[in-house]
Amino acid sequence: MTATHQLAAIEHLNTSSHTEALRWLDGVYEHSPWVAELALQQRPFYSLAHLKWVLAQVVSNASKEQQLALLRAHPVLAPKPAPDLTAASHQEQRSAGLWQCTPAQATLLQERNTAYQQHFGWPFIVAVKGPRGKGLGPQAVLDALERRSRATPAHELQECLRQIHRIAELRLNDKCDWQPTLGQEVWDWHEWLAQFSDEGFAERGELSVSYLTPAHLACAKTLQLGMQACGFDEVEMDALGNVVGRYHPAHADAPYVLTGSHYDTVRNGGKYDGRLGIFVPMACVRELARAKRRLSVGIEVVAFAEEEGVRYKATFLASSALTGHFQSTWLDQSDKEGISMRQAMQAAGLDPRRIPAIQRDASKYLGFIEVHIEQGPVLHSINMPLGIVTSINGSRRYIGEITGTASHAGTTPMGQRQDAAAALAEWSVYLEQRATRDGDSVATMGMLNVPNGSVNVVPGRCSFSLDMRAPTDAQRDALAEDVLQALASICQRRGLRFSHEETVRAGAAPSDPRLQQAWEQAVSSLGIPLHHLPSGAGHDAMQLHRVMPQAMLFVRGENQGISHNPLESTTADDMQLAIRAFQSILELLN
Amino acid sequence: MTATHQLAAIEHLNTSSHTEALRWLDGVYEHSPWVAELALQQRPFYSLAHLKWVLAQVVSNASKEQQLALLRAHPVLAPKPAPDLTAASHQEQRSAGLWQCTPAQATLLQERNTAYQQHFGWPFIVAVKGPRGKGLGPQAVLDALERRSRATPAHELQECLRQIHRIAELRLNDKCDWQPTLGQEVWDWHEWLAQFSDEGFAERGELSVSYLTPAHLACAKTLQLGMQACGFDEVEMDALGNVVGRYHPAHADAPYVLTGSHYDTVRNGGKYDGRLGIFVPMACVRELARAKRRLSVGIEVVAFAEEEGVRYKATFLASSALTGHFQSTWLDQSDKEGISMRQAMQAAGLDPRRIPAIQRDASKYLGFIEVHIEQGPVLHSINMPLGIVTSINGSRRYIGEITGTASHAGTTPMGQRQDAAAALAEWSVYLEQRATRDGDSVATMGMLNVPNGSVNVVPGRCSFSLDMRAPTDAQRDALAEDVLQALASICQRRGLRFSHEETVRAGAAPSDPRLQQAWEQAVSSLGIPLHHLPSGAGHDAMQLHRVMPQAMLFVRGENQGISHNPLESTTADDMQLAIRAFQSILELLN
Repeated sequence: MTATHQLAAIEHLNTSSHTEALRWLDGVYEHSPWVAELALQQRPFYSLAHLKWVLAQVVSNASKEQQLALLRAHPVLAPKPAPDLTAASHQEQRSAGLWQCTPAQATLLQERNTAYQQHFGWPFIVAVKGPRGKGLGPQAVLDALERRSRATPAHELQECLRQIHRIAELRLNDKCDWQPTLGQEVWDWHEWLAQFSDEGFAERGELSVSYLTPAHLACAKTLQLGMQACGFDEVEMDALGNVVGRYHPAHADAPYVLTGSHYDTVRNGGKYDGRLGIFVPMACVRELARAKRRLSVGIEVVAFAEEEGVRYKATFLASSALTGHFQSTWLDQSDKEGISMRQAMQAAGLDPRRIPAIQRDASKYLGFIEVHIEQGPVLHSINMPLGIVTSINGSRRYIGEITGTASHAGTTPMGQRQDAAAALAEWSVYLEQRATRDGDSVATMGMLNVPNGSVNVVPGRCSFSLDMRAPTDAQRDALAEDVLQALASICQRRGLRFSHEETVRAGAAPSDPRLQQAWEQAVSSLGIPLHHLPSGAGHDAMQLHRVMPQAMLFVRGENQGISHNPLESTTADDMQLAIRAFQSILELLN
Repeated sequence: MTATHQLAAIEHLNTSSHTEALRWLDGVYEHSPWVAELALQQRPFYSLAHLKWVLAQVVSNASKEQQLALLRAHPVLAPKPAPDLTAASHQEQRSAGLWQCTPAQATLLQERNTAYQQHFGWPFIVAVKGPRGKGLGPQAVLDALERRSRATPAHELQECLRQIHRIAELRLNDKCDWQPTLGQEVWDWHEWLAQFSDEGFAERGELSVSYLTPAHLACAKTLQLGMQACGFDEVEMDALGNVVGRYHPAHADAPYVLTGSHYDTVRNGGKYDGRLGIFVPMACVRELARAKRRLSVGIEVVAFAEEEGVRYKATFLASSALTGHFQSTWLDQSDKEGISMRQAMQAAGLDPRRIPAIQRDASKYLGFIEVHIEQGPVLHSINMPLGIVTSINGSRRYIGEITGTASHAGTTPMGQRQDAAAALAEWSVYLEQRATRDGDSVATMGMLNVPNGSVNVVPGRCSFSLDMRAPTDAQRDALAEDVLQALASICQRRGLRFSHEETVRAGAAPSDPRLQQAWEQAVSSLGIPLHHLPSGAGHDAMQLHRVMPQAMLFVRGENQGISHNPLESTTADDMQLAIRAFQSILELLN
């Protein structure tokens, strides 16, 4: 078993002499033994994941000078083997196929590398083996170089450090003679499902799967086949297009654990949003089925057909049906082509009359647990592969407008203006400060516009959108109250008018304490520290929260946690940890 | 002569007993003898204009309670004579035709009046005799009521006070048995010229006259006829379309005073912007010609064909030709229909080859003086009919963009954002404070937009325009330097990038001290106090500044000084004062 190699290596590191331990870690961080030196002061390591985290933290906590020195110790990526490459770098660059660039790619790589280094003052660093560990290839490296050349220096410094940690993860796996094989398989499952995309997008490498399109139905079919292959006892597609797999408990009538997430995507989205929460429990069921094990609880995995609200205005269609909150009026909503939801369902062979039967009897479930890629930068920024979700934030959204008086920019003295945009700016500064003060609230003015503005006209109107979220409804409402009060007082002082309309008010969904604690135990069993965070985004768990206990686990996203974007990414190593945590929580709920 | 009546009345007021003076002023301010009481403490009055200003200042300096009491002393405008109207109000409402509304207008007037009074807490007040003194008519009153109902209370309070002053001006004229007949004539000339507007606008009461359109050529022809009627010795249209009138001096070879302004307008603009500076000297020449007087200086009035830059990108075409700065490449600029300036000139019968001959020999002129409506709120807010321009502000303009990172509004903690709009907001607050600190600088962010912004996405980009103006180039540059420095430091601190491009850099044109002093003497001779202000807008005088001394006189605008808008307005009384000041400066330069 490869896991044995991993444990043996960590045991060796914990028990060997300082010199021997240093020697074992040599080469993990390029020409920078001080990283290992400082990390070893924190022995014992509880697991390979813990060792990786300790090493990354050493670098994160180092001075900027030390960080820059570490960056500069890295070789420039070259289109042919450089004579001074370390053995590890040599192997990585070779296996990534970097030396098989075309002549044009080779020239471009050298040009962009030089420009990058001149701009930032350090060489471009990327883990060429990539998130799966099998090598990015020359074009992906060139694309990353081009993209990252446009980042701010502070941002790019952090990204380089993450890439260094990723290189270290891969080198440590090799040193332990261990690979995250389950994580790699699940990583591949995401690729496999991502081959289906709505017309017009697939050819550009963009992923768009919206409700009941041909690509969406192909995904549903593929998920059914996948669940069957994993060894679920029952697999069905329900009247909404949800794909449901049930793995029976040891004894009939035992309760089930409900889990899953959605397989639809936003337009031009990522491969992991939603789908990770389907594939992780599928992998766990497959391992149980292979081992011919039954737990005392049943496992029900739902691949929800719709969460993003792309094709129709209503969102969470699929999870709403499970809780009995699907509204039949939604069936009359039309998409951009004028096709009603009812028509789309009928064309897909679904029977809308059977939707009410989807509702679950909550008493038959222990609760709902959901794994999801974080879709934010928090875990990435603290080198943490997994995070414990404390609550799905409640939110309030507004659209509105401030109205002043358009006047001549040259002839209206500063003291005699009714400048709608200046008032909005003052309010925006308050908004940012007020949300920051809470610590875990967020507030965003995502839309901002002076309609028909001119360079020489004092803005008479300024429109805005406002989005505020907090882990509890009380905190959300206090934030909203202060912010709207500030708008009123700024407008009164400046002699302006304003209007706004609340477009969304969603309640917070705090995690069930018992399920959250189970996730904490599951993550702790992996040897890594716990990090708690609220979910800023909405999830299917928010819907299930209406009828049963729920708690979520977040998995770190690469590229600063970007989501709803093709750059959304996570590594096979982190997926492996999520699977291990899921296996663990199943045992705990057993 | 009516002026004698005016002087006799002021003399009477200055020399009579307090009781008699109070009695004389009775009824000027509706049921509010305290205004006259306080004004009389400031005897002697130097002129009717001075008396009007003193009275207005008493009200402006009163407490808000006193001001509200004055407002509430006014009768509600009714569609039929109310029994409690004062004689003055009765006469005004009757002469304005208010009682001749249709039944529908009568209902509307009552409904809107009630809503207005409920909203603001005082009755709607408007000088029903209007800016010309001959009565607004029911529809104009209804339109003003509808428009002003939407104003902020602070704004509307000021507007009501101005209307009360306007009512007082008209009542005082009647008491003095005097009318501003020259001002009324010039007011009518503006109406007369405003009958020509580019196709598509005239029918909606909007005024648009852009370079060499049929409406523009009709204006030129009309101005030629007007100058001839006024008694100019020479009238011609030059190769650019400027209409030039020359009134000869007593002796040939004597220097000329150059004056004038532009007759083109912005799209849907006002009737007074530019044109007032043509008609005021035309009226002065007519008075001289009628009296068969020659001055020792000649008078050259230029009605400039183009200043606003509406049809072609280049602005100040006309005054540039006088200074020798017309660039022949401008002839190749095309309008929206693809018609080049050269083609437009040829179609109008103008010969572009003759443009260089338009250049004036500056040594033959004493300088350039220009009368212009203020196009700003300053004079309006201090009850001052005329203002001395100290400088035409220099300006710098930019367009640019801040670039951050678009990210999920729910999942990106406040401390981990690169929010382009939040940075812009912080910068905008600095911009406003920094410009305000100068006292007479102005800075405006007229365009502001998050491109493709969404309610739930942290803005990754925010575009802006920036306009900064100051009375001297040094002050303008210090402002621009601080503002751009602030942008750089805000972006650096927040980890954002920015770009900007300077699109305009125009030098300040300080008034010639000798000509400015002449304007001061001219205004002082009217008995009204002096108020100095910079011109925030560009004017033809700015162009003439390149070759000869220049100084401008501003005339108060109604409706808070709004300009480039059909609501642009000024009164016959203020026009009369501008004509008197112009006559006076001609004598001083004589």
